[in-house]
Amino acid sequence: PSSYDLRDQLSGRVWPLVRRVEPGGSGTLTVDHDRHSFHAPAACASHAPPAGCRVLQHAFRRYQALFFPHHADVESLSLLQEDMIHALNSSLRRLRKHRPDDRQQGRPEPVLSATDVEVKDLAAPLDLGVDESYELAVSIQGQMTVSAQTVWGALRGLETLSQLVEYNFPTDSYAIHEIPFRLQDSPSFPHRGLLVDSARHFLPPIRLKRTIEAMSFAKLNVLHWHLTEDESFSMPSSSHPELAEKGAWSAGERYTIRDVQDVVEFAQLRGVRVVPEFDMPGHVSSWSKSHPELFEQACLERSRRLAFKPTKDVFDFLQGLLAEWTTTTFHDQFLHLGSDEVPFECWQGLSISEGGKTYSTPTQLFQHFVGSMFSRAHGQLNRSVIFWDEAFVSARAELPAEAVIQ
Amino acid sequence: PSSYDLRDQLSGRVWPLVRRVEPGGSGTLTVDHDRHSFHAPAACASHAPPAGCRVLQHAFRRYQALFFPHHADVESLSLLQEDMIHALNSSLRRLRKHRPDDRQQGRPEPVLSATDVEVKDLAAPLDLGVDESYELAVSIQGQMTVSAQTVWGALRGLETLSQLVEYNFPTDSYAIHEIPFRLQDSPSFPHRGLLVDSARHFLPPIRLKRTIEAMSFAKLNVLHWHLTEDESFSMPSSSHPELAEKGAWSAGERYTIRDVQDVVEFAQLRGVRVVPEFDMPGHVSSWSKSHPELFEQACLERSRRLAFKPTKDVFDFLQGLLAEWTTTTFHDQFLHLGSDEVPFECWQGLSISEGGKTYSTPTQLFQHFVGSMFSRAHGQLNRSVIFWDEAFVSARAELPAEAVIQ
Repeated sequence: PSSYDLRDQLSGRVWPLVRRVEPGGSGTLTVDHDRHSFHAPAACASHAPPAGCRVLQHAFRRYQALFFPHHADVESLSLLQEDMIHALNSSLRRLRKHRPDDRQQGRPEPVLSATDVEVKDLAAPLDLGVDESYELAVSIQGQMTVSAQTVWGALRGLETLSQLVEYNFPTDSYAIHEIPFRLQDSPSFPHRGLLVDSARHFLPPIRLKRTIEAMSFAKLNVLHWHLTEDESFSMPSSSHPELAEKGAWSAGERYTIRDVQDVVEFAQLRGVRVVPEFDMPGHVSSWSKSHPELFEQACLERSRRLAFKPTKDVFDFLQGLLAEWTTTTFHDQFLHLGSDEVPFECWQGLSISEGGKTYSTPTQLFQHFVGSMFSRAHGQLNRSVIFWDEAFVSARAELPAEAVIQ
Repeated sequence: PSSYDLRDQLSGRVWPLVRRVEPGGSGTLTVDHDRHSFHAPAACASHAPPAGCRVLQHAFRRYQALFFPHHADVESLSLLQEDMIHALNSSLRRLRKHRPDDRQQGRPEPVLSATDVEVKDLAAPLDLGVDESYELAVSIQGQMTVSAQTVWGALRGLETLSQLVEYNFPTDSYAIHEIPFRLQDSPSFPHRGLLVDSARHFLPPIRLKRTIEAMSFAKLNVLHWHLTEDESFSMPSSSHPELAEKGAWSAGERYTIRDVQDVVEFAQLRGVRVVPEFDMPGHVSSWSKSHPELFEQACLERSRRLAFKPTKDVFDFLQGLLAEWTTTTFHDQFLHLGSDEVPFECWQGLSISEGGKTYSTPTQLFQHFVGSMFSRAHGQLNRSVIFWDEAFVSARAELPAEAVIQ
């Protein structure tokens, strides 16, 4: 078949579609579930392996389970736990993991017992725009190689490969079809994100992790985590524990710092960056339960939905919190500061004078807030700052070109 | 407080309520998440430990994670997997796992670093009526003991204990309150079951396992697994693989034998018996896709919902299958053979002569079917057979006293 044909045949099995496949043979490669293992790059065997080797080792264990969803060892609890993960995964992917009519014809077939993984740069950090390309090649003799510039590309290649391994019920075995082939892939977009909101409805860490796991199946690479809201405050702070103690839905519906770090680490191991969003100056009513001084008294009395007071003491407080969170927990270059749907009625009649300027209209006050928080988060905390589009519409005069608008 | 008071205080935290608690002190026992371990009975350290020791070892690992839901070690993948399990569990139990206002007062508190588990009979099998009683005692010095007649009782005690361990967000620590106390518990009913139907809607093994895990939290002990139906046939058979190959919803929506064995083993380790139901002679349309000879031709042509032909060759075929399934997979004493909602129109005009008798009316044919399958499953396969109540209503004349009616 032409490369177009094979790509077409892959369309039911590999998602999203890969960029290029050639040439596409008619052989079958049996994958030996008892003996199969992954071979890491040689540099990973050194005494001080590069950072990416740990990412690969975790991935090898995950994909070993994803390759062989019907072969868990119930005697071993840790494998039983793997079974829970891979069964969870395979249930999401069940419909495209099986090939109904494939009986072995008795002809000798090559057997895959090792997948070679080659990575050029084992130290590349998971940043926006990192090279995620990979090549997956299987020879007529059944030699399988995943090659990538970075471990993040290797993860995408392992995902594609796992989607090509098909289980055959009648023979109780696994195989890859239409070999030999050579498959090249790279993402069309460097940012492939999903937004989750754990504040309107609390999401336990396991929910977030399952979402992240599913994202990795679809090769998504950014979790946009909307963490704080009018309705609840579940984000922990060691300097200000009262924020979550008083602002959470309930005593238990909040995170520990370790919980959040775990989620970030879990995501990192799957090539998923976590961009936290702390929405402000609106969508912050839950902060008032522990810190009413962040708001105008008139706003607290008058308005159901609150907005931060756009003053220096509030900016200082927020910068301190953001400094803690970006230091201890969120290491990504990007930080999202919301800025949507500010309840301007909260600032009615308010006039603020700071740095020799006076801000009197809601638009001026909003510009002052956005501009001040941008310069602190960008200048002091060294983050690339993202705002919702309303910041651009209302406050573009205060936003330098480095601000990112979503 | 009186024992009634403590029982009352426990009511928000332990579910189902325990039978008896006394006397209930005012102390607090800190549970050390770094050092805590479980001590198995001494007999488990022998060279050939009794069968129950394996059940305990698995339970100790599960409950270690359930005790400390906020302390997973992300560096270790197997602990990460535990984290997935216990976070899943704790999310189910989150609302009653936390104590909002409990600050340590600086007074010295006893610390729990080991829970002693004592079991009289480490070999008792998980059968209907097995002793599931247990006693949970904590002294003023903080010594914690779970005592039970069998490991199945010990599992219930560990579950209760895990529900008493509360996490404190501000101090990032765990504690048990109102010590000392002595708690005695035993079930009101020996059969505490849940019915699941994996045939109308396919349930992947992970779904069944999560259900079983949740059952163990509620101290339920029987999974009634309704496996075959008009709509689909997902139960594997090595002697007749064509049943699931042709009868399943799709090529992937069925089990391997290992999958089913895994579920049974997973349940056993949590003190949950699995009673399979193979519904017959009605609710069997999916069998016709691979075995139309099990049905009257007129029935196949006329009826949307089918009923087995009540003849000796059909009984032989069914007995062979049940023999395979009860030998390889389902070890429980009980076997459910359905018998509800038989589409009698399938037998209209049918007359069967066997063993010198003639069966002509639908009621006679139903009695013949139920009586024959009972004698085979009970007499040949040595199972206690359960039927739905319609078998009793319509066919009581053919049912000996050993038949169980649900």
